Amino acid sequence: MRFVLSVVVLAILTVGARADEGMWTFHDFPSAKVQARYGFSPDQAWLDKARKSSARIAGICSASFVSDSGLVMTNHHCAHECVADLSTKDHDFVKDGFWAAAQTDEKKCPNMEIQRLDDITDVTDKVTAATASKSGPAYTAALREISASIEKSCQTDTAHRCEFVNLYHGGQFMLYRYKRFTDVRVVFAPELAMAFFGGDPDNFEFPRYDLDVSFVRVYEDGKPAATPDHFGWAPAPKDGELTFISGDPAATEREITSAERVFDRDVVAPMIVATRAEWRGILAQWMRESDEQHRIGEPTQFYNENSLKAWKGRQAALGDAAQMKRHDDAEVALKAGIAGKPDLAKAVGGAFDDIAKAHAMFAPFYHRFYLLETMSHRGSDLLADAVHLVRGADERALADGKRLDEYRDSALPDIEQKLASTAPLYPAFEKLEIAFWLGKLREELGADDATVKALLGKDSPEQAAARYVDGSKLLDATERTRLWKGGRSAVAASRDPMLELVRKIDAASRKVRKTYDDDVEGVTRAAHEKIARARFALQGRTSYPDATFTLRLSYGAVSGYTSTATGQRVAPFTYMGGAFDRATGQAPFALPKTWLDARSKIDGRVPFDFVTTNDIIGGNSGSPIFDKNLNIVGLVFDGNIESLAGDFWYDDTANRAVGVSSAALLEALAHVYHADRLVTELQPKK
Amino acid sequence: MRFVLSVVVLAILTVGARADEGMWTFHDFPSAKVQARYGFSPDQAWLDKARKSSARIAGICSASFVSDSGLVMTNHHCAHECVADLSTKDHDFVKDGFWAAAQTDEKKCPNMEIQRLDDITDVTDKVTAATASKSGPAYTAALREISASIEKSCQTDTAHRCEFVNLYHGGQFMLYRYKRFTDVRVVFAPELAMAFFGGDPDNFEFPRYDLDVSFVRVYEDGKPAATPDHFGWAPAPKDGELTFISGDPAATEREITSAERVFDRDVVAPMIVATRAEWRGILAQWMRESDEQHRIGEPTQFYNENSLKAWKGRQAALGDAAQMKRHDDAEVALKAGIAGKPDLAKAVGGAFDDIAKAHAMFAPFYHRFYLLETMSHRGSDLLADAVHLVRGADERALADGKRLDEYRDSALPDIEQKLASTAPLYPAFEKLEIAFWLGKLREELGADDATVKALLGKDSPEQAAARYVDGSKLLDATERTRLWKGGRSAVAASRDPMLELVRKIDAASRKVRKTYDDDVEGVTRAAHEKIARARFALQGRTSYPDATFTLRLSYGAVSGYTSTATGQRVAPFTYMGGAFDRATGQAPFALPKTWLDARSKIDGRVPFDFVTTNDIIGGNSGSPIFDKNLNIVGLVFDGNIESLAGDFWYDDTANRAVGVSSAALLEALAHVYHADRLVTELQPKK
Repeated sequence: MRFVLSVVVLAILTVGARADEGMWTFHDFPSAKVQARYGFSPDQAWLDKARKSSARIAGICSASFVSDSGLVMTNHHCAHECVADLSTKDHDFVKDGFWAAAQTDEKKCPNMEIQRLDDITDVTDKVTAATASKSGPAYTAALREISASIEKSCQTDTAHRCEFVNLYHGGQFMLYRYKRFTDVRVVFAPELAMAFFGGDPDNFEFPRYDLDVSFVRVYEDGKPAATPDHFGWAPAPKDGELTFISGDPAATEREITSAERVFDRDVVAPMIVATRAEWRGILAQWMRESDEQHRIGEPTQFYNENSLKAWKGRQAALGDAAQMKRHDDAEVALKAGIAGKPDLAKAVGGAFDDIAKAHAMFAPFYHRFYLLETMSHRGSDLLADAVHLVRGADERALADGKRLDEYRDSALPDIEQKLASTAPLYPAFEKLEIAFWLGKLREELGADDATVKALLGKDSPEQAAARYVDGSKLLDATERTRLWKGGRSAVAASRDPMLELVRKIDAASRKVRKTYDDDVEGVTRAAHEKIARARFALQGRTSYPDATFTLRLSYGAVSGYTSTATGQRVAPFTYMGGAFDRATGQAPFALPKTWLDARSKIDGRVPFDFVTTNDIIGGNSGSPIFDKNLNIVGLVFDGNIESLAGDFWYDDTANRAVGVSSAALLEALAHVYHADRLVTELQPKK
Repeated sequence: MRFVLSVVVLAILTVGARADEGMWTFHDFPSAKVQARYGFSPDQAWLDKARKSSARIAGICSASFVSDSGLVMTNHHCAHECVADLSTKDHDFVKDGFWAAAQTDEKKCPNMEIQRLDDITDVTDKVTAATASKSGPAYTAALREISASIEKSCQTDTAHRCEFVNLYHGGQFMLYRYKRFTDVRVVFAPELAMAFFGGDPDNFEFPRYDLDVSFVRVYEDGKPAATPDHFGWAPAPKDGELTFISGDPAATEREITSAERVFDRDVVAPMIVATRAEWRGILAQWMRESDEQHRIGEPTQFYNENSLKAWKGRQAALGDAAQMKRHDDAEVALKAGIAGKPDLAKAVGGAFDDIAKAHAMFAPFYHRFYLLETMSHRGSDLLADAVHLVRGADERALADGKRLDEYRDSALPDIEQKLASTAPLYPAFEKLEIAFWLGKLREELGADDATVKALLGKDSPEQAAARYVDGSKLLDATERTRLWKGGRSAVAASRDPMLELVRKIDAASRKVRKTYDDDVEGVTRAAHEKIARARFALQGRTSYPDATFTLRLSYGAVSGYTSTATGQRVAPFTYMGGAFDRATGQAPFALPKTWLDARSKIDGRVPFDFVTTNDIIGGNSGSPIFDKNLNIVGLVFDGNIESLAGDFWYDDTANRAVGVSSAALLEALAHVYHADRLVTELQPKK
């Protein structure tokens, strides 16, 4: 009966993968599955072409090459920051849109990098040899050392980025080598009101009427880069048509253990939702105070609201008792499968318990970790820059393999580019962000906490924020670059108040970071590696790895669905005429003047937005949707509300990717924006 | 072995009640337990005197009579709204404090009512006869009818309030008759900065240095009311001393089922925390815009932040796996006990499943229910008034026993007092609140929801809020009273925009309310009644009922504890000198000028705030802490952070009540405020 047990275990191990589920790597793509379901089997040449036609926007989004002259298509919200950075009080390109009528009008983005995945190497054997039988701090140190060494031997110039990639939570280790494009210029962006029609209320919803697109161009040596590998262009897809989506889904947690899901539900989600919700309120009111404050706060609020809604969706998913039980049951079955094979049982040992204990230990200091190690890096740009300068100087003085991950040599070009960015920083806004962060620190750590006392002294958070920001020269890119280049001695010699701020927290931050790295992440990673190997041993590598903001390919089809909120059937397409029916004239349901003026020129029957069953997640923003001939049929810009559970599981009955159709893109470019140069480039005469 | 099983079950049924646990009724007080633990046994005369010396502030707080001339002691935060209502742009009594040097200077609160529990009658038999074998809508209707009829036969004049009270979730039904005092005048309130020293960061924390007190006086026929039953005054208590606390804890959920705890964790807490956190942010920024806006928004923010922090604490408690398991196990044991007795098993039937199913059904419409039936009533005062006018007119046209609970005859005096209140409403602030609510409605129900469309039309939430508030005459108490008295015809004849708003939502609101009343609350209450009776049958009535904002008595002792956050031992007392050490000069850690000026007069060794093991919860604010001689030793104003789990369970190792000592109260009144008249009244010459 052993065989029967194994069969049962195998069936449950994958938690009953659903049709079209999966964010597959290009090096383990299940062409046979696609053939079986859709009658088309991507071959290696096809996969290579798709990969080289795909692109990643450093840190945030996906994109695609759509001409042989470096033209890149992505979402408006992926170039939003660039368009905002180029705006001034007098020229608000976010509000009014941007169009370079001639190629010479294309404007360089202060802080945007595009990357193309050129080479893939499997380094699993090297890594497992280096980390064998290690856990906790020893595992963390060994993994850090070997991964830095692997990256370093690959990293030969600044035109490329070598990235060590951990797949299947330690089941497979890869080295990805990217071509970097750092001269990125904006070509076209519509008005935000059109890109994000419906705003936050419609975000993650469908039906939608958004033209969430922008076009940028990569340059080399001051000229448009040659990009012979690029997607072609096709009409809008049909209902039921096979669709592919390439891109860089940022993170999923489908392979985590029950203890980690409970930790997400009870510890992580409550903190993030409460913090982001409060920040949303502060920022919304601050933005109402003047048009200029609205302009300044807008990109941050866009990101914040998007993240808040996504986290609320995750929180709701983790409250889904049936799905939680399904995954808990799968874990029980996996454990039984492991227990049934003495060699596996020995290798896995107490891995599941180790993870549970590490998270029980993490819970009491999660808030401290979040505030000191996450929010200080991802909140105020000025604060993040100051952290980079102080920590970066200290870390760079260490050997590459001994540094914190984010300061290893391979990661430095990104930091340098950010520090050198000429995107404006607004003191009033930085103060608002830093005061909020200081207030949260006092609230969560208590007024008597030593770090809080050091930061605030006798000041209120607002007074302290003003003290740190006013008089800081770090608002100036030249000074930031000078300090970065000057390293430890230059940083040590500076009495800049923002650097003083970081000095007050850095010891405490590093302490909590080290505890996390060693006792939480180190333990969890080592345990997951054991579990992943056991899973492979039981079932082979038949599944896809959790998302890691690296290139993936998903397949699916255009398909409507039944809304879980209303129980109503939702059709797969909207049409351009619908945007005019839905418009109220008031933000976020106000159509821009260009559209109102062009109403009679627009064919209302053209498919506008549509949904597919492709399995995607945040990070896939800007991904191309293409057909089996590698021609663009749409552009991903969102998932529906049901897709937010996709962090933890994929449900093919309702999880949908949301995109703009290729036909709507052309219709708008031609008849609303008269962007003829762009239309011609996208559809060159044969 | 039956006996053994029963013993085991009995032990677990009460989830292992902890020492000093319990918010006991005066009619079932465990004097023997107090005798066994502390060597003092309250007799009936003592209990009666304590009850008649205690008071409730309608809707919000607890209080006590502390002289024979109607003097009432409560917290500053319980009279905060009154003090704010009496303030103007030129006289800010919240900021500067209030002191009536002569009795004729005492100022009437526009909207404050004090109630004393004079009579208690057990009506369980009447109720169970009327609801026997009913569930769902039939149970709701029968309970509504019988409870209204019981109240009506008691309610003979407006000087009293008769209240039907459901204890033990249907295990015991009582009729409470209160003496009402509606002429309440403020005598003394310190500066908010002193009452709430440490502000939100220190809220629910200890050590503390707050003088959270106010004194008001009840009047009858224009003269101070005679209150022969009142507490005396004693010095500060000693460490370990026996302490009693009487008062009206608002709500606990210690007797709920596992399904309800999970519902609280996964559905209720996420919604409330996210909503309150965002509102906190909006209001905080709005209050920063001007001193006047700060003054206007402050009482609402105080309440909101307090509620937010309490809900975060509840959410954290529900993430405590060990406690959750302990209570789940107790439920399993209770079910086993019931299953072991065929008559009980038959009587209880599927009660546990009924509750689980009702909540599974509730989850998808909880957000709608919260926004339409809770937030519209408890957010904007103007909106709440409009709802009372429209619904109240319709409901009063029905027979008493057919109405929604909040419009039965016994409840109308409270509503009438609120509508007639001359407390100012500020249009800009009402708009801010209503715009936030409208925005949330659109966000949660979707822009295409019929109710949302009816409310907004083509407007933004801000525009719609302005449309409803501007031009509304409901800002004026005279108009509100005219409409209330005029009933349906007067309301129907008015085109007031706020009434129009309510008309747009009322059908939808009533629909969701009816579904809740019938299919969630009706089912759950009927099921709980069965469970409660089975519990009594198995163990007798040896426990206390969940809190219901009715008078309770708890016992305990002054005692330090070990902080769960820091692991440090916390001493039971702070001392007055400590306030000066902790002061920074910046809100919320700024001492008022009166204190800075009086520093040399204040004896720094006087105990300031202290903690006891008494089991209390929100609603106990303002409760007296008294000794076995019925003399005041302190004044409850808070619980520590560990007490927030007290909604679900009591943990004697860390759950603490926080109070101001009687000695600190006198020291401040005498040496800071020179309130000699008050000092003499509190400590009359023998």
